[in-house]
Amino acid sequence: MADQKKMVEAITSRDVDFAKWYTDIVRKAELADYSSVRGCMVLRPYGYAIWENIQKILDAKFKATGHENVAMPMFIPESLLQKEKDHVEGFAPEVAWVTHGGSEKLNERLCVRPTSETLFCEHYRNIISSYRDLPKLYNQWCSVVRWEKTTRPFLRTTEFWWQEGHTIHETAEEAVEETLRMLEIYAEVLEKHLAIPILKGRKTEKEKFAGARDTYSVEAMMHDGKALQSATSHYFGDDFARAFGITFQGRDNTQQYPFQTSWGMSTRVIGAIIMTHGDDNGLKLPPDVAPIQIVVVPVAQHKEGVLEAARELTARLKQNWRVKLDESDNSAGWKFAEYEMKGVPLRIELGPKDIQEGQCVVVRRDNRQKYFVKLEQLEAQLPGIMEEYRQAIYQSAYENRAAKTFTATNLEEMAAHADDGYIKAMWCGKLECELAIKEKFGITSRCIPFEQEKISDTCVCCQQPAKEMVVWGKAY
Amino acid sequence: MADQKKMVEAITSRDVDFAKWYTDIVRKAELADYSSVRGCMVLRPYGYAIWENIQKILDAKFKATGHENVAMPMFIPESLLQKEKDHVEGFAPEVAWVTHGGSEKLNERLCVRPTSETLFCEHYRNIISSYRDLPKLYNQWCSVVRWEKTTRPFLRTTEFWWQEGHTIHETAEEAVEETLRMLEIYAEVLEKHLAIPILKGRKTEKEKFAGARDTYSVEAMMHDGKALQSATSHYFGDDFARAFGITFQGRDNTQQYPFQTSWGMSTRVIGAIIMTHGDDNGLKLPPDVAPIQIVVVPVAQHKEGVLEAARELTARLKQNWRVKLDESDNSAGWKFAEYEMKGVPLRIELGPKDIQEGQCVVVRRDNRQKYFVKLEQLEAQLPGIMEEYRQAIYQSAYENRAAKTFTATNLEEMAAHADDGYIKAMWCGKLECELAIKEKFGITSRCIPFEQEKISDTCVCCQQPAKEMVVWGKAY
Repeated sequence: MADQKKMVEAITSRDVDFAKWYTDIVRKAELADYSSVRGCMVLRPYGYAIWENIQKILDAKFKATGHENVAMPMFIPESLLQKEKDHVEGFAPEVAWVTHGGSEKLNERLCVRPTSETLFCEHYRNIISSYRDLPKLYNQWCSVVRWEKTTRPFLRTTEFWWQEGHTIHETAEEAVEETLRMLEIYAEVLEKHLAIPILKGRKTEKEKFAGARDTYSVEAMMHDGKALQSATSHYFGDDFARAFGITFQGRDNTQQYPFQTSWGMSTRVIGAIIMTHGDDNGLKLPPDVAPIQIVVVPVAQHKEGVLEAARELTARLKQNWRVKLDESDNSAGWKFAEYEMKGVPLRIELGPKDIQEGQCVVVRRDNRQKYFVKLEQLEAQLPGIMEEYRQAIYQSAYENRAAKTFTATNLEEMAAHADDGYIKAMWCGKLECELAIKEKFGITSRCIPFEQEKISDTCVCCQQPAKEMVVWGKAY
Repeated sequence: MADQKKMVEAITSRDVDFAKWYTDIVRKAELADYSSVRGCMVLRPYGYAIWENIQKILDAKFKATGHENVAMPMFIPESLLQKEKDHVEGFAPEVAWVTHGGSEKLNERLCVRPTSETLFCEHYRNIISSYRDLPKLYNQWCSVVRWEKTTRPFLRTTEFWWQEGHTIHETAEEAVEETLRMLEIYAEVLEKHLAIPILKGRKTEKEKFAGARDTYSVEAMMHDGKALQSATSHYFGDDFARAFGITFQGRDNTQQYPFQTSWGMSTRVIGAIIMTHGDDNGLKLPPDVAPIQIVVVPVAQHKEGVLEAARELTARLKQNWRVKLDESDNSAGWKFAEYEMKGVPLRIELGPKDIQEGQCVVVRRDNRQKYFVKLEQLEAQLPGIMEEYRQAIYQSAYENRAAKTFTATNLEEMAAHADDGYIKAMWCGKLECELAIKEKFGITSRCIPFEQEKISDTCVCCQQPAKEMVVWGKAY
């Protein structure tokens, strides 16, 4: 038990210093390491395995909805980046520039892609000529680079990993439909597979993606009440097509501009998993993405028959789950703490007494609840226990969000909760009110939720007639 | 049939202009497209799907042998690249340099990784302190950049996609064993999964990887007799560990240097698939990596019941194979040519007469051999037909290689076959002979095969006593 205590003490308490608690977990759970390149991280095996599981889930859903994977170059010539005015204004200040190849100075600088709209547009221009070529539903898995001033592992790094979907359609209606379809997929992945309750909505003009007509996002609330934009989906209209000269021959034989979308989810979402579910003992991973779903810990493993029984049990469970048996010399107490830190959803303890009684003890990571399960009933009972765990961590996040969601009808009420979480308040739709709120309280409009409520009749800021409800908050 | 003829005519004949035939296939089969960045390509859905299938096969084998995936940064600070003398000499002339982040000039240039030994070394230095931390068996999937003067899709591009394994071990023996284990995995993937016969061997000092003690490679022969290095595996000894100051406390409590390896296979191997198996009708894909393994082509599809039967058949086959049903309005002849171009291993034709007789026609891509198969026996017979196809394309490549492999005991004999394929010849082991052969004939030592033969007693060049047999040839 000394080991366990030591391990637990080594993490800063979540309520004492949330930022330090976060970086402690990243380090102690061996999710990521720093590199000598400022703001770039190394994804370690445990962190990468979580990302691989997220990739598998997303990729299967993309393919099931007709999308195909491609790979674009990592470089964008400066002239190509500049073709869409709003887009270049948004991204040029934060890109890395390649100026030399070997010992030669390049005629034209290349930026390392911060996002790939321009490359997809160039390619679409090459391959699309008729309505029969549409739609193209493409996605790529890659890393992108944005020159960030202050960085934190997963949340904001100079390089990060993501998928970026880029689609092109015959009609605006189809493109809008695609934009919302992909938002729904993100919402489902977050709510169901990652057990993170989210808010779906549209971004304000100020907060939308550089070059987009509309940006939609799914917003999650972290344990400290701050928001984390967890994925976005953009509708471009035909703006990029016009800027890049992409046209197709329509059904009526006229030349027309196609309509585009893009959408992405990144390794940031691992930060959301940490900060939504984690506690002072470490990570709590959602079962669908946990690299180890069940850890088997033999108790008194030096006793005859214990290790053999644990191995047999592990082999059985591996048919349905990602299971690890820890046979190391470390104490059972050390192992308990270690796999709690790593967020393994269920632990199975198996000792001489259990074996004698034909049972084992299943322990949930979230509340340490114990289930004494007959060995022959284990396969039948595990799915239910795992699902209870998943629902419990979802429910806990849901309750945290509910407790940290407030309403405000004027700036005084807003001031009272500016640091506490989400604030639902009405908005007139004017940029100056949005800017005033940011200036006063350091909070931004997270989104205009699809599910609108009427908090009051007038804008929380200017008290002019309100157009819609906005959820405001501090954000990562 | 007019359509089919047109499609076939559009490809340059393989025997008329092999290089043009190659690029025709890349374009017509929609494997890759050029981008506006010199030497960088776009991997299109069909090309990327082949790569995804190769990835799945390799990744499963890596994981089965205890390897874990990680992700390293894409940038390497100049000072880090310079730490290992031979390594930097090999790579510095061909890297892309990032000099600016946003509008700021960087204090130190960053290169875009041409390979990641230096990054792994830096990370290993952070995380290894005891023999208990060893081995680390890591791999990453990414793209790398080498500033190439002349480029061709898949074969040599400024950016390419690959996996790079990097492992670190307690003892030299373990590291050597790992180096050879991974070479065997590559050999198995090429021979069995890609149906490409290969030669396994060690590289000469001149041809080995910059910074390696030993480089091993698997070499494939293309249809034109030129060699293509298809994967490499390197043993580093403790040279990188010494250069980067990586040490660990050994079992005897002394500080020791660990031993390292690296190994990689890239999208180049798609070039090998094209040039090993392809013919004047297009690609011939190995079944294990073909995005479409079976195409179902309805014949006289406007007739009642044909499409329904084709759909039913397709649904059945999808349980075991990657199957596409082409219901488009294009003629059956056009479809035959299209999927031959795309290298689909088997085509199933189903028309009104077939349906009446309860059969279908299975046609092999390689030789158009027809199999009339009763519908109820299709599931039972397809694996055998597919395997016959796989063996046939392997056999065809094997025979091509045999016909283009020669022996030489002196330079005159070498001259006679310098342009024709592999030349097996003895070598004294001296660099000057290797250079002289390259100078005279433009051919290089491909490898020193594990399976040695004794062609003669003396070096093919200097006629001094020979040390070993080398396979020489022109290479992509």
